[in-house]
Amino acid sequence: MAGRKVLIVYAHQEPKSLNGSLKTVAVEELSKQGCTVTVSDLYAMQFEPRATRNDIVDCLHNSDEFNYGVETWEAYKRGGLSDDLIEEQKKVQEADLLIFQFPLYWFSMPAIMKGWMDRVLVQGFAHEFPNCYDSGLLKNKLALFSFTTGGSKEMYAKGGINGDIRYLLWPMQHGIMHFCGVKVLEPHICFAPEYVSEEKRKEMLLAWAQRLKTLWKEEPINCSPEWYFK
Amino acid sequence: MAGRKVLIVYAHQEPKSLNGSLKTVAVEELSKQGCTVTVSDLYAMQFEPRATRNDIVDCLHNSDEFNYGVETWEAYKRGGLSDDLIEEQKKVQEADLLIFQFPLYWFSMPAIMKGWMDRVLVQGFAHEFPNCYDSGLLKNKLALFSFTTGGSKEMYAKGGINGDIRYLLWPMQHGIMHFCGVKVLEPHICFAPEYVSEEKRKEMLLAWAQRLKTLWKEEPINCSPEWYFK
Repeated sequence: MAGRKVLIVYAHQEPKSLNGSLKTVAVEELSKQGCTVTVSDLYAMQFEPRATRNDIVDCLHNSDEFNYGVETWEAYKRGGLSDDLIEEQKKVQEADLLIFQFPLYWFSMPAIMKGWMDRVLVQGFAHEFPNCYDSGLLKNKLALFSFTTGGSKEMYAKGGINGDIRYLLWPMQHGIMHFCGVKVLEPHICFAPEYVSEEKRKEMLLAWAQRLKTLWKEEPINCSPEWYFK
Repeated sequence: MAGRKVLIVYAHQEPKSLNGSLKTVAVEELSKQGCTVTVSDLYAMQFEPRATRNDIVDCLHNSDEFNYGVETWEAYKRGGLSDDLIEEQKKVQEADLLIFQFPLYWFSMPAIMKGWMDRVLVQGFAHEFPNCYDSGLLKNKLALFSFTTGGSKEMYAKGGINGDIRYLLWPMQHGIMHFCGVKVLEPHICFAPEYVSEEKRKEMLLAWAQRLKTLWKEEPINCSPEWYFK
């Protein structure tokens, strides 16, 4: 879909990793379609994950008792957020689709990516009560979580030792993206790439490229408890 | 319970916050009982949340392709982890109870605390297949997640707009603590303290102090899908 804009938020330390290759495949395939693709390579950027007073460049709204949520909201409104946050917010604002590419760490995203969520999706920019969920401020955008796991598909099956993989998607897909109004596409999961052959890993890359070819025709999931816990 | 050791992993920027007070209440009450209490004040420590090559002080096992999980596992075995991680692991090793005190950020813990999980709970130290879940390497320890929310209790009820609060506890309680063999006590949740009176906030502190008085008599939850998604 020529002209569409995609932001890939990518968190892996090693370009040669499968995550690195999945990111590259997405850049290539989407560019081939005529999309404009931007990558936030969080480790390469040494992205700051900690939510601190440094995110507000000027004076505080209430310097007597620091409240991160209130302070970043106020700073957003007056244009007083730190440059790295303004930069990421611009990328989000322009994007039609956000792809999050990462290895699953502890049933969730790595801390560096969680820090991106904590710091970039500021009140006023991404949501502002009552503009949350279906009327969140980032509505009309799509998100897709693409990740690798340590455990196998069987371990992440319903009744498996890790429980249904969908259980752990709830905070990320519903709690973050849906909350901001973003519609969520089916996740793309590569199970246990470290325990399969080079051949199999190549198939994983091909499957991702293949999916991306028809991605714009996909319907978002129904991001409600039924999808996750049925 | 005199002699018991408690580690409080605490993530709030502001000592005057309710989270700060909840942490102080826990230190005071548990000390009064004769427990030894240690606090890891993550923001004050400027704790590093990013999982990088810097966590391995000496040479890499495979410098051609960096794999964080493998490298930290190998480094753990030969004593080659960075000092800050060794320090935190010592505190965990000595503790009978881990209390995590934080404000809920995006249906999860703040990135600085997720980074503590990502970096401290290294393979070989906290788990080592097949020693996971009930036979995880940190068995015989207890954990308790104590946190504040932005949303109200009604919003986090089953059928509420945010879904049952238990849904979001799965990755933290089951995916992290249970995986390492740690038994999990009922979470302690202060709903929407920013929207209640000073009087109500004082009651929240008292309720926490009260619970701590009999904490050692509590039974862990049954950390299985039924508890979370029933």
